[in-house]
Amino acid sequence: MQTAILIVQCKDNKGIVAAVSDFLYRNNGNIIEVDQYIDDEVGDFFMRAEWELDTFNIVKDEILRVFAEEVGNRFKMKCSLSFNYPKPRMALFVSKLSHCLFDILSRYHSGQFQVEIPLVISNHMDLRPVVKAFGIPFYHFPVNKENKAEQERKQLELLKGNQVDFVVLARYMQILSRDFVGDYPNSIINIHHSFLPAFVGAKPYHAAYKRGVKIIGATAHYVTEELDAGPIIEQDVARVRHHNTVEDLVQIGQDVEKVVLSKAIKYHLAKKIQVVGNRTIIFN
Amino acid sequence: MQTAILIVQCKDNKGIVAAVSDFLYRNNGNIIEVDQYIDDEVGDFFMRAEWELDTFNIVKDEILRVFAEEVGNRFKMKCSLSFNYPKPRMALFVSKLSHCLFDILSRYHSGQFQVEIPLVISNHMDLRPVVKAFGIPFYHFPVNKENKAEQERKQLELLKGNQVDFVVLARYMQILSRDFVGDYPNSIINIHHSFLPAFVGAKPYHAAYKRGVKIIGATAHYVTEELDAGPIIEQDVARVRHHNTVEDLVQIGQDVEKVVLSKAIKYHLAKKIQVVGNRTIIFN
Amino acid sequence: MQTAILIVQCKDNKGIVAAVSDFLYRNNGNIIEVDQYIDDEVGDFFMRAEWELDTFNIVKDEILRVFAEEVGNRFKMKCSLSFNYPKPRMALFVSKLSHCLFDILSRYHSGQFQVEIPLVISNHMDLRPVVKAFGIPFYHFPVNKENKAEQERKQLELLKGNQVDFVVLARYMQILSRDFVGDYPNSIINIHHSFLPAFVGAKPYHAAYKRGVKIIGATAHYVTEELDAGPIIEQDVARVRHHNTVEDLVQIGQDVEKVVLSKAIKYHLAKKIQVVGNRTIIFN
Amino acid sequence: MQTAILIVQCKDNKGIVAAVSDFLYRNNGNIIEVDQYIDDEVGDFFMRAEWELDTFNIVKDEILRVFAEEVGNRFKMKCSLSFNYPKPRMALFVSKLSHCLFDILSRYHSGQFQVEIPLVISNHMDLRPVVKAFGIPFYHFPVNKENKAEQERKQLELLKGNQVDFVVLARYMQILSRDFVGDYPNSIINIHHSFLPAFVGAKPYHAAYKRGVKIIGATAHYVTEELDAGPIIEQDVARVRHHNTVEDLVQIGQDVEKVVLSKAIKYHLAKKIQVVGNRTIIFN
Repeated sequence: MQTAILIVQCKDNKGIVAAVSDFLYRNNGNIIEVDQYIDDEVGDFFMRAEWELDTFNIVKDEILRVFAEEVGNRFKMKCSLSFNYPKPRMALFVSKLSHCLFDILSRYHSGQFQVEIPLVISNHMDLRPVVKAFGIPFYHFPVNKENKAEQERKQLELLKGNQVDFVVLARYMQILSRDFVGDYPNSIINIHHSFLPAFVGAKPYHAAYKRGVKIIGATAHYVTEELDAGPIIEQDVARVRHHNTVEDLVQIGQDVEKVVLSKAIKYHLAKKIQVVGNRTIIFN
Repeated sequence: MQTAILIVQCKDNKGIVAAVSDFLYRNNGNIIEVDQYIDDEVGDFFMRAEWELDTFNIVKDEILRVFAEEVGNRFKMKCSLSFNYPKPRMALFVSKLSHCLFDILSRYHSGQFQVEIPLVISNHMDLRPVVKAFGIPFYHFPVNKENKAEQERKQLELLKGNQVDFVVLARYMQILSRDFVGDYPNSIINIHHSFLPAFVGAKPYHAAYKRGVKIIGATAHYVTEELDAGPIIEQDVARVRHHNTVEDLVQIGQDVEKVVLSKAIKYHLAKKIQVVGNRTIIFN
Repeated sequence: MQTAILIVQCKDNKGIVAAVSDFLYRNNGNIIEVDQYIDDEVGDFFMRAEWELDTFNIVKDEILRVFAEEVGNRFKMKCSLSFNYPKPRMALFVSKLSHCLFDILSRYHSGQFQVEIPLVISNHMDLRPVVKAFGIPFYHFPVNKENKAEQERKQLELLKGNQVDFVVLARYMQILSRDFVGDYPNSIINIHHSFLPAFVGAKPYHAAYKRGVKIIGATAHYVTEELDAGPIIEQDVARVRHHNTVEDLVQIGQDVEKVVLSKAIKYHLAKKIQVVGNRTIIFN
Repeated sequence: MQTAILIVQCKDNKGIVAAVSDFLYRNNGNIIEVDQYIDDEVGDFFMRAEWELDTFNIVKDEILRVFAEEVGNRFKMKCSLSFNYPKPRMALFVSKLSHCLFDILSRYHSGQFQVEIPLVISNHMDLRPVVKAFGIPFYHFPVNKENKAEQERKQLELLKGNQVDFVVLARYMQILSRDFVGDYPNSIINIHHSFLPAFVGAKPYHAAYKRGVKIIGATAHYVTEELDAGPIIEQDVARVRHHNTVEDLVQIGQDVEKVVLSKAIKYHLAKKIQVVGNRTIIFN
């Protein structure tokens, strides 16, 4: 079933829900899901509606224009419209660790993720056989201080050439440059192996061990210019005990990382995430 | 701020959200929260809307009638309307264990629960001092096989005389009769000390220990005729290990029980629960 | 590093810890981990000790005999001795669902599981390509009422021929016969897709949906004659909401299943599980 | 049943477990619980043993000396010995929020905590009635910049005069001075309303809201000179969603705070906590 997804944002006001739902009703849109949220802090209203395209009276290319005329302009709405088809195209960036890659490919393989994976990029060769076994092109871009800018330029070229919609850093151990990030706003998902904002940066499990925390975590977030500071999409945790070594934390944490990252991808694919300032609304 | 809460249920159909939200808009209702849910299993649509009464154009007593005429009848809706004021009146039933009672009275004392507690009923005297310290009337009804019907009759009289809206069994160790339950449909909340439907009935921690489970739980549910089988409102769990004795399970479990029960009370007070068959919708 | 693991069980008595630890000390055993547990219910004492073999004064084949003479017989101990090398040999049984299989193979691939996987057996062909990609032999045994006994006989032959130490049912949708189970006591690990003892048997997610639970779970247990009633090794849960469909529960649950099953395998590989009656001690 | 609890720390070495357990065995000590831990990081060995005093051959006052002679000196052990009787004496410090206070008093009342509470100290009068209802002396010490040193001096006097063994800051909104803390090393337990080390300092729920975290937490720790940086005893978390306001976080968080703080008190009372550097071992 093909669907359209509309997300709107505007100053909170009476009559918005009525106006949007009336628009869908008048144009024969069968609503599958609708969710709204009022941010009392800033006084903004947010709404996400998903409806069937089949029976809808307005053709895809005209929906946004007609909606703006009939509803959006009146409330000074920011609108974004997307469709569940064709499938979004996701690029994976990996280094040496395989747990997140396997988890993603497993869901891709079983059909849980409605996504195309045109390519996997890595700064190491280690995971090439895994990727090839799934029939996905693998590109090796060794990165060092000298060639980083040049390699990123080539990577971006490759992403554009493959019509990549969003990027997932599945334990990619390189920091992307400001320029790279700027090309994919709110479209690069990273998994950080700590419960942010605790333990930003490198070796968070070592830092967690040293601090003696009783719970460790993982955080999926959109990448922004500032390291590990982008909008958080999903987090989860696991309990640890004093006798767990750093190596134990790494292993326990990996089980959290992969599930958290895959949940974030799922939300992103379903267009359920709206970034507001440095926070995310997860429509559900 | 005084608010009205409307919950409607009907066959799913196009235009319902538009009709309800338009009704509120036309009558100057400032929406505070609206949530809807489509039950694909039975094809029913559910909606909960809460709005400010102050500015609303229709007086309290007329809302339900006008809504039925203008919207409800068209969609053959079942409607229920309530208000957040005056505060609901809650009766507590307890036996000897104090953890749930303390937790509820603590929230009542700090203003977290917007509720009146006109009385506490118990089949034992143990908790009388606790209840009196909070300035709440305490009634002692010793119960045995012979006097049970008679005692329940008196308890019901007391509840009616105190305009009690709903009853909370805070680890009350007696089974209420079918007649008693019938007088308070979806208005008696019980906390069962297991993760239902596992370990129905008496001594669930002993049963959990014997079965060797690695996680125990607690379940808050509406009381129905069948023991521990009513609609589940909230559940939570705690991890246990092989070296935990039955006494440990009891103590670990109590921390879960009291939080789960208080969450259920909070949902009930906010009119966020809709019972459908033997399931609950928790609007949020 | 090669290690020996000794697990003893006997009536609780003074001096046991002293006797066992003195035995290891006198024979130059460098203890890596020691854990004990007194079961107050039955009055039994349990102890697990793991130590380095390199420097130990007694050769592998003699340890059990010498220990019995010097310590075990005095306390009427039941003893079991094992070694972390050579790696145990694990057979996987699967049907059509791939999430547990991928999770296990991913850990096998990354070296997290110190195990050999000589073969995978399935009643369907679906997962053959996945298994082959990992270079593991795949055997197809279609099963129906008529051929079940015969197929099990052949499967057992294959297991024996491959020196299989233990079997993991990674969402294998067939019930093993009493005879099959009898051949591998406490050596067949199953993952059941519910929080046992709730929802025994087929279609637990459907049953969970129908009962309206707010939390679902998964249980890894040793297979015994009685369906889903064997000793529980590990459990975990995930929160669900009223708007989750049965399909949602299936998907949410799969993330729990795979992590729970892999934890159980990890405990089994490390010889950290002792079955007592129908419960498990997990030494840690 | 009266018990003795011995905790030892020394460089890891062969024969320690044997020596300690042999000492207890020879002197007729019936072991109730024994647990050990090797810290691979620093190469230290830790052991906690609890045994019955009744039948023990050495009188209380002599145990430490005899143990040192027969075992401790040989391994250069640091030893600490304590007894479960008489009950430890705990002072509570509170400000205005009642949830932790109620939770502690509820457990005290039901006998879950084996402790004496000779007094409660507060910088506000709000919770005086609650404390008085439990028959516990309440002392009011208003604190400002000018009188802080003087008030702390009086508080310390009061604590000494009441033979207080340890202090619990149950949401006490004042920072204790370095001198005060120095008088009770590893004996002042604080509950911080965040998942440390995230959100150190004031208003952590506001900071958590602003950062957009999906999980909030609470941390019980020993107070040291550096704010919110002492050894962590226990932590737990709760899930939050985008629509939760700061006030929601406060309320959700309070349920976590009170359970975490009470767990920490329970461990402290049972002498199950050993501080090593800035980490804690929780024997179990």
